[in-house]
Parts: sequence; structure tokens; C-alpha cells
Amino acid sequence: MEKVLRDPIHNYIFIQHQVILDLINTREFQRLRRIRQLGTSNSTFHGAEHSRFTHSVGVYEITRQICELFQRNYPSKKKGDGLWDDHERLVALCAALLHDIGHGPYSHTFEHIFHTDHEAITAEILTSKTTEVNQVLRRVSSNFPQEVASVIQKTYPNPQVVQMISSQIDADRMDYLLRDSYYTGTNYGTFDLTRILRVMRPYKRGITFHISGMHAVEDYIVSRFQMYQQVYFHPVSRSMEVILSHLLKRAKVLYEKGKLDTAITPHLLLPFFKNNFCLSDYLKLDDGVLTTYFIHWCDSSDKILSDLAKRFLNRKPLKSVRFNSRTTVLLPKLRDLVNEAGYDAEYYTATNDSYDLPYDAYDPTSQKQRTQIELMQDDGTLVELSTISNLVAAITGKVSGDERFFFPKEMLARSSQVEVFAPIYKEFQSYIKNGRITVPKLS
Amino acid sequence: MEKVLRDPIHNYIFIQHQVILDLINTREFQRLRRIRQLGTSNSTFHGAEHSRFTHSVGVYEITRQICELFQRNYPSKKKGDGLWDDHERLVALCAALLHDIGHGPYSHTFEHIFHTDHEAITAEILTSKTTEVNQVLRRVSSNFPQEVASVIQKTYPNPQVVQMISSQIDADRMDYLLRDSYYTGTNYGTFDLTRILRVMRPYKRGITFHISGMHAVEDYIVSRFQMYQQVYFHPVSRSMEVILSHLLKRAKVLYEKGKLDTAITPHLLLPFFKNNFCLSDYLKLDDGVLTTYFIHWCDSSDKILSDLAKRFLNRKPLKSVRFNSRTTVLLPKLRDLVNEAGYDAEYYTATNDSYDLPYDAYDPTSQKQRTQIELMQDDGTLVELSTISNLVAAITGKVSGDERFFFPKEMLARSSQVEVFAPIYKEFQSYIKNGRITVPKLS
Amino acid sequence: MEKVLRDPIHNYIFIQHQVILDLINTREFQRLRRIRQLGTSNSTFHGAEHSRFTHSVGVYEITRQICELFQRNYPSKKKGDGLWDDHERLVALCAALLHDIGHGPYSHTFEHIFHTDHEAITAEILTSKTTEVNQVLRRVSSNFPQEVASVIQKTYPNPQVVQMISSQIDADRMDYLLRDSYYTGTNYGTFDLTRILRVMRPYKRGITFHISGMHAVEDYIVSRFQMYQQVYFHPVSRSMEVILSHLLKRAKVLYEKGKLDTAITPHLLLPFFKNNFCLSDYLKLDDGVLTTYFIHWCDSSDKILSDLAKRFLNRKPLKSVRFNSRTTVLLPKLRDLVNEAGYDAEYYTATNDSYDLPYDAYDPTSQKQRTQIELMQDDGTLVELSTISNLVAAITGKVSGDERFFFPKEMLARSSQVEVFAPIYKEFQSYIKNGRITVPKLS
Amino acid sequence: MEKVLRDPIHNYIFIQHQVILDLINTREFQRLRRIRQLGTSNSTFHGAEHSRFTHSVGVYEITRQICELFQRNYPSKKKGDGLWDDHERLVALCAALLHDIGHGPYSHTFEHIFHTDHEAITAEILTSKTTEVNQVLRRVSSNFPQEVASVIQKTYPNPQVVQMISSQIDADRMDYLLRDSYYTGTNYGTFDLTRILRVMRPYKRGITFHISGMHAVEDYIVSRFQMYQQVYFHPVSRSMEVILSHLLKRAKVLYEKGKLDTAITPHLLLPFFKNNFCLSDYLKLDDGVLTTYFIHWCDSSDKILSDLAKRFLNRKPLKSVRFNSRTTVLLPKLRDLVNEAGYDAEYYTATNDSYDLPYDAYDPTSQKQRTQIELMQDDGTLVELSTISNLVAAITGKVSGDERFFFPKEMLARSSQVEVFAPIYKEFQSYIKNGRITVPKLS
Repeated sequence: MEKVLRDPIHNYIFIQHQVILDLINTREFQRLRRIRQLGTSNSTFHGAEHSRFTHSVGVYEITRQICELFQRNYPSKKKGDGLWDDHERLVALCAALLHDIGHGPYSHTFEHIFHTDHEAITAEILTSKTTEVNQVLRRVSSNFPQEVASVIQKTYPNPQVVQMISSQIDADRMDYLLRDSYYTGTNYGTFDLTRILRVMRPYKRGITFHISGMHAVEDYIVSRFQMYQQVYFHPVSRSMEVILSHLLKRAKVLYEKGKLDTAITPHLLLPFFKNNFCLSDYLKLDDGVLTTYFIHWCDSSDKILSDLAKRFLNRKPLKSVRFNSRTTVLLPKLRDLVNEAGYDAEYYTATNDSYDLPYDAYDPTSQKQRTQIELMQDDGTLVELSTISNLVAAITGKVSGDERFFFPKEMLARSSQVEVFAPIYKEFQSYIKNGRITVPKLS
Repeated sequence: MEKVLRDPIHNYIFIQHQVILDLINTREFQRLRRIRQLGTSNSTFHGAEHSRFTHSVGVYEITRQICELFQRNYPSKKKGDGLWDDHERLVALCAALLHDIGHGPYSHTFEHIFHTDHEAITAEILTSKTTEVNQVLRRVSSNFPQEVASVIQKTYPNPQVVQMISSQIDADRMDYLLRDSYYTGTNYGTFDLTRILRVMRPYKRGITFHISGMHAVEDYIVSRFQMYQQVYFHPVSRSMEVILSHLLKRAKVLYEKGKLDTAITPHLLLPFFKNNFCLSDYLKLDDGVLTTYFIHWCDSSDKILSDLAKRFLNRKPLKSVRFNSRTTVLLPKLRDLVNEAGYDAEYYTATNDSYDLPYDAYDPTSQKQRTQIELMQDDGTLVELSTISNLVAAITGKVSGDERFFFPKEMLARSSQVEVFAPIYKEFQSYIKNGRITVPKLS
Repeated sequence: MEKVLRDPIHNYIFIQHQVILDLINTREFQRLRRIRQLGTSNSTFHGAEHSRFTHSVGVYEITRQICELFQRNYPSKKKGDGLWDDHERLVALCAALLHDIGHGPYSHTFEHIFHTDHEAITAEILTSKTTEVNQVLRRVSSNFPQEVASVIQKTYPNPQVVQMISSQIDADRMDYLLRDSYYTGTNYGTFDLTRILRVMRPYKRGITFHISGMHAVEDYIVSRFQMYQQVYFHPVSRSMEVILSHLLKRAKVLYEKGKLDTAITPHLLLPFFKNNFCLSDYLKLDDGVLTTYFIHWCDSSDKILSDLAKRFLNRKPLKSVRFNSRTTVLLPKLRDLVNEAGYDAEYYTATNDSYDLPYDAYDPTSQKQRTQIELMQDDGTLVELSTISNLVAAITGKVSGDERFFFPKEMLARSSQVEVFAPIYKEFQSYIKNGRITVPKLS
Repeated sequence: MEKVLRDPIHNYIFIQHQVILDLINTREFQRLRRIRQLGTSNSTFHGAEHSRFTHSVGVYEITRQICELFQRNYPSKKKGDGLWDDHERLVALCAALLHDIGHGPYSHTFEHIFHTDHEAITAEILTSKTTEVNQVLRRVSSNFPQEVASVIQKTYPNPQVVQMISSQIDADRMDYLLRDSYYTGTNYGTFDLTRILRVMRPYKRGITFHISGMHAVEDYIVSRFQMYQQVYFHPVSRSMEVILSHLLKRAKVLYEKGKLDTAITPHLLLPFFKNNFCLSDYLKLDDGVLTTYFIHWCDSSDKILSDLAKRFLNRKPLKSVRFNSRTTVLLPKLRDLVNEAGYDAEYYTATNDSYDLPYDAYDPTSQKQRTQIELMQDDGTLVELSTISNLVAAITGKVSGDERFFFPKEMLARSSQVEVFAPIYKEFQSYIKNGRITVPKLS
């Protein structure tokens, strides 16, 4: 019994275990079809409408291919020889398939406002006896759900399995780069997957790459960097994320004050407004549930709520400019001007740097210890990637994000129908040059 | 002022008129981002999650390219010379962009149950003064909205403009074949767009193709045929369509009987249950609104409603087999067996042929007169495509759809936990062989 | 020891036997790098400059993938069960790799003039002890060279192995369609290789396909048809083939008459002029050897030889028009006019139909019995493809080639510098309309 | 009169001037079909068999697209305004098409041995009245040939035209990266051509790019770097280049000593052996001419000549290892060992670094002044690329080539049939570790 799914990235996805097929057919997994992979990115790249479902089966497929290659070329012969033990295959495949199962709609923004935690929820979906996922996993063995969860939590004892799913160069990242590249229609994310898989090999401390594939690995790292710069950190998508965040915050504030219109109750959000939700509440959410409430809120009597809802649904992004440590001092002035022009600066301005965003860029300054990429030479010794690649070293040494200040597009108007605003707009604009906040020249 | 949108199919989409940019930014058009192009097809081809928004801008772009080529190579010199009058460009571009603006969620099924009409709604969106689309169009001239509508309704006087948007080989079909092919990850829909555009030319009665491009046109027709056979008519997608249809029907019936749970009112559907809706009611609908209600209905006390909602959300398709004019006589018997096995046959069985489906296949037996594809020879005379292409003739002469009977997958179970059902299942299965209904052999 | 070759069509080609690697490294196989796969087609599609080497390793790779799938899914359990016996793998792989080893430069034209036979030479290369190929093959076993040869000659007892390499849908055809499509930059030849491989299965009488893959097989047949129509039978390539043929004929005639310039002896062609060549003579030929002599012949004192050589090297194709059984009667008249205009009609005109060309189209009217494509239904019964595919039936029933008359482009000149030729040109042109020979209208 | 050529990279190449069509049809240009673009690279990447012809028409097409965009978006309004004067189009197109017309077979190696100079020959082909190219160019105006030549020589007064054809980011480099990437089947060379063209703009000192396209330009530079590292500098291709060079050198030395077999005279090479050649001698050479002589030389009585000819024709590359300034001192010792093992070190060893190779890498340390890539900000000021791109800065600062020592593969044999050589091999191998020359450890 081998089944296939047709996939634009991997051509076919091969399902070779009943457990995998059954997991895909659970309601928790099918729900991922209704949650977009890239959140607000499709407001910039309209093709990027793919769901977390497609990404999840893609991660599964890459993991399957890695296991296949490891088993063919590096099968363990005795315990502890650092080679691949194919008994690990099923736990690796399940972890790959389910690694994102805890995501909800617009996860990162939603979490920020409602203090949910998709990683904890992932673990709960796997281990709670109430879920279909758990029921399928328990058929393997009673502690199998916990094993799969521990892979995702990186506490599983075999580092090869953990690194397949999460490391600097894992099945997760490899799938999303190729997939997001395909669906956005950019080509920055492409790299040579086949070659990388070919030079991958297990060893005692995890997974390494033969040095002959150095350039393929380098190309992957550079592609990843470019996708972050050009797709994931795009200012327009971040601006839509800002609007979404403020919209949810406004609704919550209104609810807390008892001012949210009651004619149309947002039933499925109530547990989150009340900060008292359970797993089954969470599993009812998806992108469509949120936008359905936003459609209702367009008719709200609260002007800010209805305006933000319309801006989100009808794609009216905020504008943004860069600032830095030197010009950050000017932000209060700019916020004041936005307030003066009639926009509540709390809801109509924001700052964020790229790291606020829902994607973990290659950030070596982080506290979190990351797995390095090690390359194996002919004599078995290892060298770290950035020591032999100038390109990778260049990215490694520098923080690559930018900090931006967001504000209503109207502030950039050249003229104003309401005459009183004209000097405000003009002053605001005097602080902006070449897309950056600057100290205006005295005239 | 030229703007571009990044697009996976056309690489870039060039926006060269303020009117086009403003139309894209209307709320009616942005709403298309929340309506999937292929309805239930992503239940078969998981990559097919693209929206009507992406298709609409694609049709615009192809039309823009045609106008560009016509203006460069075949500009009209005097009225009535049968060449291209570039004053027609804007009306053509607007009609291309807006041709699908009247679609709602899962249009064809929805229309079937609620008697909406997306073509009438398209016209209304264009001509009603309440819409943002109308406001933008009126800026061109007071009768411009009506002109654009008449192109879509095929009553516009210039047949070149009409045929660009709707004919056997128009910008609409060319975009959806390429786009659906890309997003499903199949390659059946690919053809040589550049070559077809290059041999296209205007003439008095519309649009023709130079005979040197015969094979490219033939390839397009064959690709279209194959996409219908393999993607649009796929039995699993049709089965999900059946479930959706029965689910909406059940909800409507319950509502009419006053039995739909009132705790959670499906506010945005009420106007349709009451058969008393206006344009603004319609424009609030999208895929997410429907699935939000389905999520609620999973908890309904009506067993059929909740079961169908779960089947739709969690992708539990019905099974199907082919039947024909000879075996149609067996359907009542099969429905009886389904009833006996505990499934209400009204909601758990259905028949449909491919032509019930939301895509108009190449069907020359139809009553509707279609524009033929004419090829122009060196001396200016025309020949009809199927007279010189064996492949096209082969498709032209035959009806290609199939008729299927849908029923619960459980009917195919090899054994049953409930012993009493076992003989029912067995009898049911005796009527099925090689995916077709057959008369069982006497034993 | 697994080696890979990078390949644009298959991404990587996996070499898993030392014998295969050694065969690739023989001088007879390396020679295929210097012989273009598509002969004169690059005069029409300039990208089509790929060699028989790349095609041969591609056929090998597809065969390897088939064996891999057969071994995984249909391994023979006991002799005669009709499943795949993996002991056949090596003979299949070698036959796949070497099936074109006997080709020389512009094989079909060369054979026509010099009575060589690439099939006989293939067998000789495999079985003659003088070749490196034979030495490598003999290392497997003493009768292995003969076994491989018998696969190519279709006399090998196991029909599965034979049909992998030569049948209506074999590794050879599948590779060349994809490869020629890629290198020409057309996309007519693309089809779903992965899906076809997935539905392929061995059975007693050879290879069949599961009926669920019917549309993929159909698509392959249609793609093949379209490649023949649009690439392989292109009139300009055929015209260059005509020039080549006449050029070699002229040289041979001059040699036989002792009139070929002796200053520059075409050493490597002499054995063929003398009709007395051995295998090692043949193996010294390649495309470059022929063009080197053509470069010399540009300076020949024989006007026809030098003119044809220049036409071939500098790409000055003849023109052509279609004719049919009704208009064939006019050919002598047209040849007379060409003679009158100063061109020796023997060397400057020709007729050919597509079947003269070096590619075997799908031609069911042929005397040669071909393997039909059989599809297997769920219950194991077989149906022949054209009985269930309208598209395939359409191609099956009709001969698709065209017959053309070739002549110098100058005959189509609108005016002539030499006044005396003007009426000849004019009369010639009166016989041609819409690319066809026609009976001129009386004026 | 617009003609098209089908092209795998640009889909279609549009010919819109009779002059361009006539230039393509000259014998000097058609000759480029018989000279491979990448010399010996197809010995590593077998797909890379494309000719200089395909690259030349590709450079033309990119230049045409640039002119088209410049004329549409930045037409000059008055002399000296720094915008695009479309009267420059024809000279730009001709220079683009003809920039490589002076290349011969394996140019760089050939030049090294025979002191030819493809740049000087390019100029001569353009300006000598004996060529067909010159005749076509003169039809435009009497000094047009010289104008086209001056663009290629970078002395043409308009820097926009010069930089289109040769600068760090010109039509030449953009075409070869995309084309070589396509034909090798690697994807390292891909970048977003459409986006780069879109942000390109003319200004007084040449061509600049709007800063919004920074990442696309960065991606191009990185792609170029990676193609050099992974394709152009591949050790196996360089090794075949070494063999070719030594083979030609040996033939020349033998000729000078009167020891080259006279039975088969290499007529077309004699002028070069004699160092007394004219343009028409040069124009008779192509890849096939050289390999034809190599085929003859396989039978030479000179062992070195025949062995090197066989190694080249039958692809028997030398092996190589890296060395550096510290280990260069060991090279004489290694050469001695090669001599001792029976190989004449003059012909069987070599050193080269990547810069010996026929491709100019991005090398800012070079003496030659290169055009920098300047990006234009919104206010019109310029910034140099490497000041704002970490990735480009990383490549800019470092020399990226490697130095290699080449020697016969046999030196790496683990055992030897001739016992006396075993200790020589062993000692040789003691100097090599992880692909590098190292000082052996004392044992």
C-alpha cells in the first residue's frame, strides 16, 4: 500500500505507512488546509496563498527521502556506530509531518495578542487523548505520541532525528524555501535539494555534509538569506501584520470594556478574549473564522475597529520608512504629527524590526545556541561552514534586519483636501528622505 | 506611472493605467482573494489553493499583451478596416480584470442551492452606483460601466474585444489553464502562450490566428481537454462538491422547518435562506464565511448536518463509480441498499456527469453557439481548425464527460463491525466491477 | 561506489555498476559526444545542439529507474510468474546505454549514400573483440556481449527487457522527447514521466500500464505526435538534410569519376567512397570530420560541390512546398523550370515525405508489427489504448506526414537581376499558393 | 518584417532589422555554430554542448530588450540630457550580436599556443572588406563597421552603449549565466533578468539601477560567483584544458622539428604552425577541424602526441590537487616523481589557477579598471553596490580562485602492476591529503 499525493515542489509525495495516511486524514491536520503558510505575505506576492497543509506534507516528503538515502547508504550495523538506524524512520516521519500542527491563523500575531503558544499546543495535540492525532499515534505504541513530541521539542535522544526536523539546514527550512519561492513566483529560494540530500550523512553527533557539497550548502544559505530580505521581511507584508495586530488588540480592548457590539457575537473568539480557552476552542480557529469576524466588524460603531477591519480586508497597507539608533529619537515627534492629523497613533503607527516577524532568520547573535553546519572532509575531520565560505561568513557576521516606522499613507499626501492638515503633512514629510527618517535640513 | 505585480505565471503583471490600479484596490475586487479559483479541487490536488484574485489579474495581463501586440502590428488606419483601434484598450482591460467579479464562494454549488447568478451579479457590481468598482469606472465616463458590462455579456459591438475575453481561445481560458496547471503541479495545461499571441490577429469578424501557428492552437485545445479530464472532472473533487451541495441543502431545509440551531445564528447566510438578499449581502460572503458556519454546524444536534459538515471540513469524500445509459436502471436498487445500510440516500448518494461541474468543457453538441477557431492562410482565406487538425476533430466529435454515482465509502467495506450490514455491503459490491456499475453475474 | 552525472533532464544520472562506468569511458561511447542527436535540426531550433552521448545516458537512467521500481514493487518470486527478475537488470542497463552506439554522423543521410547500417554496426561494436565496449562487456561473461546485442535486436527471450528499450513507450522514446523538447526550447514534448513510471508494471508478455495512468500515457502519445509534427518534420531541417545528401552524393560521384580535387584528400571518407570500410574506419567518423571536409570543398573547382558545401555550412536552406497525389504530376514541369533557371535539378531539387526522415513516427499502417500499448484494469484484464482514448484513436487512424518538393529559394524572387530569368521565376511561382503546389488558374 | 528564433532561454528572439538578419546569415556568424561556448566544460557537465552562436543571439536579444525599455521609459528629449537616444539602437544591437565573432575553437588555449588574439580578429572581421559581415555593416554607412568595432573595444563615445555590452552587469554576462546554467543543468546561474531590466536606467555616465532592485542585482553577482566556483573553474574541465594545451604544444614542437607525420597533413593548422596566418585561415577553423586532426594523431608514431590525443578525445582527465604559497615549494619534488614514474612532466603535469581560465571572474584586485555597479536612490544620488550589500562586499574583498597541480591519475593507484613503480606512487601519495598538497608527517 503506497499512496501518492501530487505536489508542485516534490512532484509526488509518497505515503508508505498507514499511520502517515491516517494522520493526514485527522481533523487536526486537515484544518491546516485553512491556514495560510505565509500569513499576510500574499498581500505583497499575490501567488503566496498556499496553506500549512502543503508545507507539512512537503517536510514529511523531504524527511522520507533523507531516511531512504540514509538507509541505503549508511545503515547502522551495530548500536552506537553513528550510522542510521531505520527503526527511527517512523518517529522522524511523524515528527516531520506534525511539526507545525499547533499553528493557528496568523499565529505569531495571534500569539502576541492572546498569549497562545503554538509549540505548547503542538505538544498538546500530540499527547492529549482527545485528539484524532493522538489516537493514531497511540496505535504505534503508548509512548509513541510523547516520542514524536520530544523530537519536535528537540529532547529526543537521537540527534540525527532531531536535526532532520530542526537545525540550520533541515527538512522544514528546505521545504519552505522551495515552496514559498514557487508560490510567490520569485526564484530567490531555489537551491539544489537533490545535491544537498546526496552529500548529507549521519554521524554520532547528528547530521553532516560531505565537503564536496560545500557550494550547494552555501547556495542554500544564501538563498535563505535572500528570501528573508526580499519576501519574508517585505515592508508591505509587515505593515499588514501591524494592522492585523492592532485590529485584534482593539477588539480585545473593546470587549474588555464591554463595548464590542453584541448583535453579532464573535463566538469562536470569546474564549480568547476571556483568556480562558481550551484545546478544542483553539482547534476551531482558522483564517476564515478571523476574516468572518472582520467582515462583521466593518459595520462596527467603533470607528477604529471598523477602519482597521476594512484596511485589513481590502488591503490598505500602512506606509513605512527605515530608522536607526540615531534617528529613533525622532519617533515621538512623528507620532505626535500622526495624532495631530487625526489618527490615533496607538493604532495607526508602529515600529518593528524584521525579528518581530514570524520567521526565524539566520541570527547568530541570538542567545539560543544553534546547530552549526559542519562539513566532513575525506579523512573524516569536520570543518564549520563559515570558515571556508566567504559568502556565508559575510551573512554570519552581520544582523540583517531593518527597523521600520509605520504610519498612514495619507501622511505622504502632496496636498490635502482639508487645508488645516497640509502643514502637518508637510512637516511630517520633511523628516523623510530616500525611504529613511532623517533630521530635516534647516531652511 | 507603471506598477508591477509579481506573478508566478506571467512573471510580472504590468499596470499602466490608474483606473486598473484603482479597480484592483476596490473592496469588491480584493474580496476575490478570499475565494478559491478551483472550489473543491484542492481536496484532490493540494497545491490548488489559489484565489480568483490571481486568475483575474492574469486574465488582465494576457489581454494587455494582446492589445500591445495588436497595436504594434495591426493598428487600424481608418474606421472599418478590421484592424485594431487602440481606443478599445481600456474597455478590454477592465472587462478582462472584472469578468469574474461576480463570483462568490463555491459559486456553482451555491448558485444551485440559493438561486444566485454570478453573471447577473457581475453586471450589477459594474453598474450599481453603490460599489467602489462602479465609482472607479464612472470616472472614465458615465456610460463606461455599462460598456464594460456589455463586453462581459458579449453584446459589445466590437467582436475583437468580446473574443479577447470570451471565445474558445481567450485570455480567460489561457490564464486558467496555465495557472491551474502550475498550482496543481500537473503539466497537462501547459501550451505555448507566446506563440499563440504571436499568431493572433484582428479581423472584421473578431480574432483569427495565422495558419503557421496551427500546431500551437491545436496544442492549446488538447491541453484544455486534458485538464478537464484529469483535473477539473476529478471524481474526488466532484464528490466534495456533492457533499457541499447536500450540506447547504440540509441547512436550508432545517432553517425552513425552523430546526436550525439558533444558539449560533449564521447571520451572513440568513438573507439567502430567506431568499431575500441584496448585493451587499452577497459581497460579504467568501469561502471563510461558509467554513466558519460549517465549523459551528459540526456541533449541530442534526446528525446529517453535523456529519456532512465534518465530511466537508475534514475531507472525507464519497466514493463513486461510473454508470451509463444501460446501467442507470440499477441506481434505485443501489440507493435502496445505501438506505438499508443506514444512510439517508437523499443526502448520501448523488449522480452527476462532468457537465454539472463548474467548468465549461469544449462541448460542440451544446445548443449555445460558440465562436469557432478560424485560421488565416497566406492569401487571407480562413479555415476552421477541426478541418485541418485530426486531434481537434477527435475531441470535437465526442462528448467526453463521464456519469458517476456517489455513495459512502463504507459501502465498499470488506467486513463490517455491525454484522447485520455485512450482506448489504456484499450485495452492493456485487454491482461494481472495474470502477463501473455492472449487472452482477448469477452464481 | 555510486557516481552521478549532472543532467538537465533527469537532474542526476546514477551510476551504480562499475561496468556501466567503464562502458561510458570507452572510446566508442565517448565518440557519441561528437555526434549531434538531431542531425540538422539545430538549423531550425538553434538550441538543439545536444549529442547522442547525452541521450544515451538519459535512456540508461530511465531504464535504471524502471528496474528500481519493478524490483521494489513487482519482484519475481518464482520463475515464470511474470514479475521482475532483477538478474535482468544489468543486461537491460547495458542495452539501454548502448542502443545507439552504432550511430555515425548524420546517420540516416550517410547510410542512404554509403550503404552503412547503424544497427548492424551496433551489433558489431558489441560483439567484435576489437572494441573497448566488447572488452568491458566480456568481463561480465563471455556471452554477455551477445545478450546485450540481442536485447537491442529484440530477440532476447524476456519481453520485459526488450520492451523497456524498444516499444511504443520505451526508455529511448521517453528520453528523447523530454530531451529534444528541452534543448529546442519548445514544450511540446513534455509529459509526466514520473506518473508513467509509477503505473508501469511487468507481466508475462512484457510491460503494461495500470489503467489509472491512461491519461498520462495518452498525453505521452500526443506529445510524441506533436514533436514529430513541429520539430522532427520541420521543413527547414529536412531541407538541410536534402542539401547534405546531395553534397555527399556529388562528392562520391566526383570521386568515382576521378574528379575530386586531390590536393586535399578526404582520408577518413575514402573507405566509404571505395565502398570498402571496416569498423575502425567507421569509428573515426564524427560530425566534425564531415564538416572539416566540407570546409575544404568550399574551395573545390566543382561548382556544384562547392556551392552545396557552402549552403550546408552557412545554412542556406532550400525552400519547399507541399504536394499531394493530385499535384505530383506537376513536379517534372517544376524541375524543368529549375533547370532552365540554371540549377541542376538533380542536385537542387528533391522530394521527400516525413517518413524519409530519421525518426519513426507512430505509424500503425506500417508492415512492421509494433507492440501495442495495453492498459491493465483492476481485475487484471487488458484493454488496448486506442480503444479508450479518442485522442490516440485520432492519431492512430491517419498518416500524418506531408510530402514536400524542395527547390532553390531564388525561384521565389520577385524580380531578377538577370532579366532572362524573370519569366521563368514568374511561371514557377504561378504553380504555388498557400504553401502548396496548385494548378495555376488560366488568366 | 519581424522574424523570430526559438530560444530556450529567452523563449523567442525577435529580429526586427534586415541588417541583423543578414548578419546572422553571414558565413562568419554561422561558423559560430561549430564552436562550443564552454570549451571543455562539457567533459564535466555533459549537457553543456551549446555553441557561441546561441549565446551571441541571446546577447543580442537582451540588448534589444534593454533598448526597448530605455526607449519606452527614458527617451532622450534633447542632446546631452543623459537619457536614451534611440538612434544608438542599431549600433548597440550589432555590437551585441558580433561581440564574440572573433572567437575560434577553444579560443583561450589556442591563443596561448598560437598567439592569435580573438579581440583583434573581431575588429578585423568587422572592418576588413573581405568579410560578409563587413559588407552587411557597410550597407548602413561607410563608417558603421568601425563604429560597431569601437563599441566592442569600449572606445565608443556613448558609455550607455558600451556598458550594455561590457560592464560588470551587461547583456553578455547576463546571457551566458542563464544559458550556461540551463545547458549544464545546474541552477546556480539563475537570477531575475526581468527585474534587473526593469530597474536599469540610462544616465550621463552610463547605466545605473534603481535602488529598489538592489537585491536582484546582488543575486546576479552571487549567481555569477557561484557559476565560476562550480562550473567554470571545475577541476575536471581545467584538466581537459591542460591536456588540450599540451597536445597542441606537442604538435607544434614536432612540426618545428620536422617530426610530425606527413602522411596526413593538418592543412588547416599549417598557417598557425608556421606562425603565418591570415584572416581567411583563421575563419576555416572550428572545433571539428581540431578534433579531426586529433583523430589522425591518435595513430601518430610519437607516443606523447598520440597519448594526449586519445586522452582528449576519449576524456581521460588528469587528476589535480590544490596547493598554496606554502606548499608550492613541493612542486618540483612531485614533478620529479611523475618523471620517475615514466611520464614526461612537461606534458603530464601542469599548474594553473582559476584566473588562467577563459572567464573573467569578478576580480577587483585586477589592474584593469572596471565599471562599478552604481545604484540610484530616489533623490537621484548614487551608491556603489558593495557599500550596501554584505554579500557583494564579501566577494569583492577576496580572491576566489584556487591553484591546482595536475598529474596523471595513475599516480594515485593503490597498487601497481609494475612493481618498481609502487614506492614512487606511495611517496607521491604521501604528499596529498584532503585534496591538498601537504608536508608529509615523519613516520
